[in-house]
Amino acid sequence: MQIQYLINGKLDGQLTPLDRGYAYGDGVFRTLPVRQGLVQDWQDHYRKLHDDCAALGIACPSATQLLADIAALCSNEVAVVVKIVITRGDSVRGYAVIPGAQPNRALLKSPYPEYPEQHYSQGVRLHLCALRLSWQPRLAGIKHLNRLENVLARMEWQDAQFADGLLLDGVGNVIECTMSNLFMRCGNTLVTPELTQCGVAGVTRQRILALAPRLGYAKEVRSFGLPELLQADEVIICNSVFGAWQVRALGEATWAHGVLASRLRASLSGHET
Amino acid sequence: MQIQYLINGKLDGQLTPLDRGYAYGDGVFRTLPVRQGLVQDWQDHYRKLHDDCAALGIACPSATQLLADIAALCSNEVAVVVKIVITRGDSVRGYAVIPGAQPNRALLKSPYPEYPEQHYSQGVRLHLCALRLSWQPRLAGIKHLNRLENVLARMEWQDAQFADGLLLDGVGNVIECTMSNLFMRCGNTLVTPELTQCGVAGVTRQRILALAPRLGYAKEVRSFGLPELLQADEVIICNSVFGAWQVRALGEATWAHGVLASRLRASLSGHET
Repeated sequence: MQIQYLINGKLDGQLTPLDRGYAYGDGVFRTLPVRQGLVQDWQDHYRKLHDDCAALGIACPSATQLLADIAALCSNEVAVVVKIVITRGDSVRGYAVIPGAQPNRALLKSPYPEYPEQHYSQGVRLHLCALRLSWQPRLAGIKHLNRLENVLARMEWQDAQFADGLLLDGVGNVIECTMSNLFMRCGNTLVTPELTQCGVAGVTRQRILALAPRLGYAKEVRSFGLPELLQADEVIICNSVFGAWQVRALGEATWAHGVLASRLRASLSGHET
Repeated sequence: MQIQYLINGKLDGQLTPLDRGYAYGDGVFRTLPVRQGLVQDWQDHYRKLHDDCAALGIACPSATQLLADIAALCSNEVAVVVKIVITRGDSVRGYAVIPGAQPNRALLKSPYPEYPEQHYSQGVRLHLCALRLSWQPRLAGIKHLNRLENVLARMEWQDAQFADGLLLDGVGNVIECTMSNLFMRCGNTLVTPELTQCGVAGVTRQRILALAPRLGYAKEVRSFGLPELLQADEVIICNSVFGAWQVRALGEATWAHGVLASRLRASLSGHET
């Protein structure tokens, strides 16, 4: 399957270098699985897209419009990944925002990624990234288009044995991975990093926080460092595409096989809409 | 004059959402004046473009290729501004960089901005931005495409009385303005902020550092805060398009009319190639 895309609803439509997404990364995005034409957890994704747009002062297109785009792009697909990009729109040179700028939207359809089955059944190994995430409270949590830190972090390893890379901030707090959020289980409590200074607050992270009580876990959102992570009973990473994977190894540290990741995957997929 | 652009040498060529500049801000840019078809200070600009590409691991197109693009775009123009954008190229979904990716280049031609004559003759007023620049030593100095901080800072004011906005970092160091670098004159010394944690190390800043001894000034590159800036004898901001403007007012602080900005403009333009 080729990657196909719509620009403002038009197949293979024109994107220009005047688009502020291209010029400044002035926009936000979402990546979501679409199965049999149905978007999983659409309301969660749309709410997050809308909130991220609002945080940057961008007018978010309507859910109706985006769902029509998805239908046009994915009507005959069994399972694909759709990326939605919303930018502030076109503008002339310069950072100033013209009042009433019309946002641009791009929707891209990609094949569903074929991750190794062992990632699900056995868990994964993480690279510990040397790059440290910068603190910017004005952008923290938002899935915006300024992703050079993720790119540089991802360039740190080529070895396919690493499923993702763990990112710390400048003072050593554990934050997330390059393409996923992270939880540790300490006894009966699921703990995920506070993302008020950096990081992306993903939809699956939010859904796990909502699911935790039903699964019998307490939950905490707070800062913690690498030493505490290494003491955790289990560690999992999560995103909307793969659900949850257990982390089995990070540097010299290893964890025994646990059931948290598979329990979470089952619960997450039970909420397909 | 309409904004015109070349994509990989082709007039009105196609840019797609697979371009990593659009997807992640994974690229760098330059803004440079072109008069009568000649690029001012081309060697300085090309060196900076090349260094910025190298810092991100992007293969920079040759100077010959870029000059051919500029010639094709600007042959009949008296005075325009050209923006050069180099991105890491296209890629499928995901942050991973495919080895040997071919960079994409976009060149945009815009009218020369018509700034008020008073900005040159009388100086300018600055807005003090509330947004604080984040520290990321891996990206500091580079004119990359992750410019959401500049966009958010520029959104803080609408009043045309402010020519630019002053940006501090999280600990209160003076760094730069949204579209310009900054110098203060303390007696006989020109001081400009160290940009090892954040900020863009612009070509005009570098040229002023090189020119300073010839103009009889000592020079220093170091950190300083707002209180020290307010005590300076003169403050100027600079970029490749307007050269240098004196800062006459910042909040309640004002400075008497000085000669530094006009001396710098004369020296900078004396180096046209």
